[in-house]
Amino acid sequence: MDKQERLQKQLEFTLELDKLKYIERQSYVADGSRHENDSEHSWHLALMAMLFSEYANEKVDVLRVIKMVLIHDAVEIDAGDTYAYDTAGNATKREREEKAADRIFNILPNDQANEMRGLWEEFEAGETPEARFANALDRVQPIMLNDITGGRAWREHGVAATQVLTRNKNTHLGSETLWNHVEGLVEKNQQLGNLQ
Amino acid sequence: MDKQERLQKQLEFTLELDKLKYIERQSYVADGSRHENDSEHSWHLALMAMLFSEYANEKVDVLRVIKMVLIHDAVEIDAGDTYAYDTAGNATKREREEKAADRIFNILPNDQANEMRGLWEEFEAGETPEARFANALDRVQPIMLNDITGGRAWREHGVAATQVLTRNKNTHLGSETLWNHVEGLVEKNQQLGNLQ
Repeated sequence: MDKQERLQKQLEFTLELDKLKYIERQSYVADGSRHENDSEHSWHLALMAMLFSEYANEKVDVLRVIKMVLIHDAVEIDAGDTYAYDTAGNATKREREEKAADRIFNILPNDQANEMRGLWEEFEAGETPEARFANALDRVQPIMLNDITGGRAWREHGVAATQVLTRNKNTHLGSETLWNHVEGLVEKNQQLGNLQ
Repeated sequence: MDKQERLQKQLEFTLELDKLKYIERQSYVADGSRHENDSEHSWHLALMAMLFSEYANEKVDVLRVIKMVLIHDAVEIDAGDTYAYDTAGNATKREREEKAADRIFNILPNDQANEMRGLWEEFEAGETPEARFANALDRVQPIMLNDITGGRAWREHGVAATQVLTRNKNTHLGSETLWNHVEGLVEKNQQLGNLQ
């Protein structure tokens, strides 16, 4: 591949990922005016990776954590956002997302396609210190937004505190400190009736 | 400051920066359906920093570039987005943004407030390899979005090719490769009448 072709593929991928700006999540932005989208969520996680790395249980390569969170939702361009508490959607999620990863990451030149696919697989597996911390951030951020909006997305979907705690069963593996914070928020929102 | 107070300040800053999700830029997202906001733009630049670092003229610390672009627009929470080709707005921009930086970064604990303020000042000065590259990305990304939307924001504001080239006079200092790409896009859009 010549240099010009390499650059064109990288530019094409950059514009393809622009579509993350249109993929709505269930979470609301902090003022409750509208749903958050995937690109905003990914930026927020990258910001948190930079500011909260001191709370990772194990020493983490912050650049690797940030790379992971920047692209962790790329597959949703084809597979869509599956709400955390949608049981039927989550049953087919993995298959839909694998297919999406095959198409989307392969827009890039091979070396970068392999790197991005590897980062996504690593995030999904959640077995390295970086992936455990990235997954913890991905769980904590929507809880912060739910808390500040009076549990709006939780109330709309009738989510129970036990569901949030089950979804966060591995958050403590990434960060005990953030897990403690989250536990407090869940308890508070249960008392307020925002979580069933 | 005890640990709990430190964490609270970091969480407060994280929620304060959520406001970047409501600050509209003049650029449109790639499908032209709406304006892009600052958090989406910052995510897009971080993605580009990761994928395009091979095109930086000088070897750059990619993590430092990403940190810079993640927070480079934070001051706009108070100072607002000043359109690149708004002469009156740009005359008062620096003063408004300094005041904003004083308030916003100081929500953080001192060490992180100093780090973030330093990264922002470095980006603004554009004198280190990382800042030159980050500034190049910040110039290139809206040109890509303008190009893909048929020069929509340019046409709405009657922007001339010479204005875009003047604004991009330092892009080549960050990346000759990206500057060459941008020059081609400007020429193409001038021929199409999207730029005056």
